Amino acid sequence: MSESTITSRPPVQDREVLESLLKHRFFYGPSFEIYGGVSGLYDYGPAGCALQANIIDTWRKHFVLEEDMLEVDCPALTPYDVLKTSGHVDKFADWVSRDLATGEIFRADHLVEEVLESRLKGDKEARGVVESTDPAKEEKDKKRKKKVKETKAIKLDDETVAEYESILAQIDGYSGPQLGELMVKHKIVNPTTGGELEAPREFNLMFETAIGPSGQLKGYLRPETAQGQFLNFSKLLESNNSKMPFASASIGKSFRNEISPRAGLLRVREFLMAEVEHFVDPNDKSHARFDEIKDIRLRLWPMDVQAQGKTDISELSIGEAVSTGMIDNQTLGYFLARIYLFMIKIGIDPKRMRFRQHMANEMAHYAADCWDCELQSSYGWIECVGCADRSAYDLTVHSARTKEKLVVRQTLDEPVTVESFEVELQKKKFGPKFRKDAPKVEEFLLSRTECERENLAQELKDTGKIVFEVAGIDGKIELDSSFITIEKRTRVEHIREYTPNVIEPSFGIGRILYSLIEHSFWTRPEDAQRGVLSFPPTVSPTKVLVVPLSSNAEFTPIARELVSKLRRLGIQSKVDDSSASIGKRYARNDELGTPFGITIDFQTVKDGSLTIRERDSTKQVRGSQDEVLEALRSLIFDGVSWESGTSHLATFVSQDIE
Amino acid sequence: MSESTITSRPPVQDREVLESLLKHRFFYGPSFEIYGGVSGLYDYGPAGCALQANIIDTWRKHFVLEEDMLEVDCPALTPYDVLKTSGHVDKFADWVSRDLATGEIFRADHLVEEVLESRLKGDKEARGVVESTDPAKEEKDKKRKKKVKETKAIKLDDETVAEYESILAQIDGYSGPQLGELMVKHKIVNPTTGGELEAPREFNLMFETAIGPSGQLKGYLRPETAQGQFLNFSKLLESNNSKMPFASASIGKSFRNEISPRAGLLRVREFLMAEVEHFVDPNDKSHARFDEIKDIRLRLWPMDVQAQGKTDISELSIGEAVSTGMIDNQTLGYFLARIYLFMIKIGIDPKRMRFRQHMANEMAHYAADCWDCELQSSYGWIECVGCADRSAYDLTVHSARTKEKLVVRQTLDEPVTVESFEVELQKKKFGPKFRKDAPKVEEFLLSRTECERENLAQELKDTGKIVFEVAGIDGKIELDSSFITIEKRTRVEHIREYTPNVIEPSFGIGRILYSLIEHSFWTRPEDAQRGVLSFPPTVSPTKVLVVPLSSNAEFTPIARELVSKLRRLGIQSKVDDSSASIGKRYARNDELGTPFGITIDFQTVKDGSLTIRERDSTKQVRGSQDEVLEALRSLIFDGVSWESGTSHLATFVSQDIE
Repeated sequence: MSESTITSRPPVQDREVLESLLKHRFFYGPSFEIYGGVSGLYDYGPAGCALQANIIDTWRKHFVLEEDMLEVDCPALTPYDVLKTSGHVDKFADWVSRDLATGEIFRADHLVEEVLESRLKGDKEARGVVESTDPAKEEKDKKRKKKVKETKAIKLDDETVAEYESILAQIDGYSGPQLGELMVKHKIVNPTTGGELEAPREFNLMFETAIGPSGQLKGYLRPETAQGQFLNFSKLLESNNSKMPFASASIGKSFRNEISPRAGLLRVREFLMAEVEHFVDPNDKSHARFDEIKDIRLRLWPMDVQAQGKTDISELSIGEAVSTGMIDNQTLGYFLARIYLFMIKIGIDPKRMRFRQHMANEMAHYAADCWDCELQSSYGWIECVGCADRSAYDLTVHSARTKEKLVVRQTLDEPVTVESFEVELQKKKFGPKFRKDAPKVEEFLLSRTECERENLAQELKDTGKIVFEVAGIDGKIELDSSFITIEKRTRVEHIREYTPNVIEPSFGIGRILYSLIEHSFWTRPEDAQRGVLSFPPTVSPTKVLVVPLSSNAEFTPIARELVSKLRRLGIQSKVDDSSASIGKRYARNDELGTPFGITIDFQTVKDGSLTIRERDSTKQVRGSQDEVLEALRSLIFDGVSWESGTSHLATFVSQDIE
Repeated sequence: MSESTITSRPPVQDREVLESLLKHRFFYGPSFEIYGGVSGLYDYGPAGCALQANIIDTWRKHFVLEEDMLEVDCPALTPYDVLKTSGHVDKFADWVSRDLATGEIFRADHLVEEVLESRLKGDKEARGVVESTDPAKEEKDKKRKKKVKETKAIKLDDETVAEYESILAQIDGYSGPQLGELMVKHKIVNPTTGGELEAPREFNLMFETAIGPSGQLKGYLRPETAQGQFLNFSKLLESNNSKMPFASASIGKSFRNEISPRAGLLRVREFLMAEVEHFVDPNDKSHARFDEIKDIRLRLWPMDVQAQGKTDISELSIGEAVSTGMIDNQTLGYFLARIYLFMIKIGIDPKRMRFRQHMANEMAHYAADCWDCELQSSYGWIECVGCADRSAYDLTVHSARTKEKLVVRQTLDEPVTVESFEVELQKKKFGPKFRKDAPKVEEFLLSRTECERENLAQELKDTGKIVFEVAGIDGKIELDSSFITIEKRTRVEHIREYTPNVIEPSFGIGRILYSLIEHSFWTRPEDAQRGVLSFPPTVSPTKVLVVPLSSNAEFTPIARELVSKLRRLGIQSKVDDSSASIGKRYARNDELGTPFGITIDFQTVKDGSLTIRERDSTKQVRGSQDEVLEALRSLIFDGVSWESGTSHLATFVSQDIE
């Protein structure tokens, strides 16, 4: 499907009609509902489950198979050490304040922000100032369950207004203790009860558990699938015959213990992710297939435009965006284009898709560049894919912690000459001098960095000895040149050893699925309650609905034969032989997004001919069984349009009023 | 693939060769290996991941699509209440004893069993008795990491021998406290150190966590996917247009905190399951498609043969086994046959597959019948699928706990007359008499069972009053007939309301995958180190390997075109253009189980002809590109044999020695 064939539908105005359809046709619903439910957990019913499976199937073909990626499947259970190293134990947290009286828990930054904003609004009311609307602000509010329910018209003095405004401008930059000080200074309490709140404390968003019967091995449920891929780097490189660059991929559940899940599938506690880790030479981030996508035009929202407070979107080709440096490198640009093509393939409306660059203060310190693919729905613009250049961060930290090399060894075409300081120890003398501490001292000296070795060489040259301390050994240690020599040496290297950089496109499947539902939804002009989900055949839960006109026994074997012929063509179908009218049965399947219907009627019994109905136009054509099967095959697999795929078949006017 | 076309390969004798292949080709490996690993957790590499995805894809087609099942996807995070009701909080546990000195933890029943067996063996040695081997016992030992490493030849007195034998005969029936008494009485201590052990305590095998920021909502990771399906019963029935019978299905990860994971993929802590819940009328467990499978012959090991200590397998048709009552009902029999067909389809050796019925004492009290599909590997016979008739247990307990009806309402063709005892309360009098307790008393009286109502009616008739106690209210309550009447009434019912029974086939995908690997593995007669994995094309990780003869630049565009043509046919392929010899490259892919190879050589550049190589026979044929593509299509999708699929192509003798 190309962009030009996609119909842009009007945005969802009345979410209730859509929500009722999703519930009624069991796309998804709250988990454990008969037990009262648990917020942030959802069950996918048969329609949602098939939609999800088809999105994943398309993803696997588009990324893993098309690009020869190495797929891995790793456990969600992850030991403490791994997530300590990755930084999640320390940093994957929000600051929360608890109301000891009611037990309610507030996210500290959100609360300070909301309370101060509400006071400023009240001040404006008291001063009689009419506030202009801020679209970015409104968007933020849409996604958030507000804790401050009412605004009081109370005038503040000018100094306080200035102070509040300054705090709000830097609200994302405060630490937990700073937020605590602000709460005390500005008397920020529970907005509903006026009750006092505890000082903010860190709440880690990972679910914790204990592995094994002793309970001593602390573990977490992974918050992302990436770590498993990093840890397998060396095995994957070997699987790829040691060739670079290459990508791994993983599809699986991740878990985040959100403080207050909201907005349906958009913020949940357990979710399906699909992640790619593309490993690349830091000195060469070009991409072999860049030419294939360089003319694709994307709607880009770069960081400098955001910094100016503007929402202007640039529509640029990927080639231009990379050559001007707006996008850091070819590989990152290549993946943004591939993400775009994937979205179009599953039926996302390109006009409701944009790529937002992370601001400098949003990006992790190690990231070279980062773009989010955002999709627009009635909840506003939502990040559905993150695409970051994570540099060498992950491989470096895991390697440092485990002492396992996670590197590429590249045979150089031309050997290079390298100078470096090398340490030699007279090991025989270390035993007698240091006894049991000897290995520790040796390890310390042999694991110095190039710069440290240079400094030690200088010290040895200047003073005839070196003086240093080793963790775990009391006092200073002195060694003269009878123990150690440190000299600058030149050697010829035939191998270059480097830690690859990682480009990581990371997909939230539930968010994409929900956005796709909104982009596909519309109601028939003649009846606002009659919803249609216009999924492309690729992802629609069922491809063909087989509808016998009535419960006449002659229709049953025909339906059975048809289903089995469709199955042999790889077309998944369902029979609806319920007693509802044909019109009702088609309406039900419009709601399920089934693109085509085949009716079996009395004419079929006579001459074997069948009608096909197209979901969006409700047009029908009639032809022989072979013609109908061939038309469906080309409509579903070759992406042929309804008009050209059925032009040779006779138009059919149904007797049954839809 | 039919049973007759499957080659039975000799059982794996030397597991080391296979294990080295699996590691080297990265089918799977220990998770977090560079951190030292965590026992019972495995990562699937690219080959294992593709094999798993293809098994799942085949499963989904064979069960979900073929039988119109309703697939659901529910979270692994599950609140306490759900698993309390299902019985897992109380019963999904093992009894363990801890050695406080070493921290080592023992499963109490296994330890008692091993120690007493070892003492009996020592006694026999001391008496000079030669022990006959017990195959069932040997099998058990294979699967278990033994804690008792050595046997001491010490004679016991006859009374002790008899007592030990009696304990061992009923070892599966002891409670934790009883095991504790046995340990004290028979001085059972840590077999390695002789240290004392704590009294056994229950260790629940579920991973526990807390949901939400307050930490107050206790939750677990699900130990099976079934509960999510039961809780959605009413929504699923509605999705199925209220038609019975129907089945739901779920594919997803489950978690069990095994005490000592072992035997590779066979006992792990996180694993992929595929489960079906087939809901059926308890009065009619016939199956509409039973005739299609009734002549399939299975290797059955019924409970009465096991009870006699015999391992005789009956080879019976499903029709016979159901009609003689060996298998409880048609639906259960239907699923056993479908499980068998699935296993054959993915390449399981039918001679290493059997169906073992659960013994009466193994089955849950509510189960009507239960059969395991066991697959044989070098670890012995392993349960890979359980297929149980769980009666109405699950729906009944969840319904009772939540007060949500989980029933089918069936419109009766003929209305029926029903007699029952009905309770009527003079509610006006309850308020003044019981005040705030009135609703409790009313609820108690209105929720009595038919039998309890009959007894109360009798008591009221005999004594003029009823006396009862209500939980949460002190003392006895007396009511006379001015408060309550209980009378037998007759009414005509047009609707039959019933709780369906559930037939549950439950698949452990990792165990099936590992067994399949063993059943597919063999080594070339000329070289015991050269392994081949003869997966059928349906599940093999890659279908076709494209091999350019050398790195000649003319081969590259041909390879690229070929891959893209194969992709259009839906055939997944990989190019191996590494510099290794053709023979080495084919050997590598024999290890990966790739069934076909296409060689591009200088003849190809001249006339476009290509050779196909068959993995198992290493035979090669040559033909035009179209001939080769058509042959591959029919070999892969139509299940055509190599001989008939390539009979029209010329035999090719490779110059390269394999």
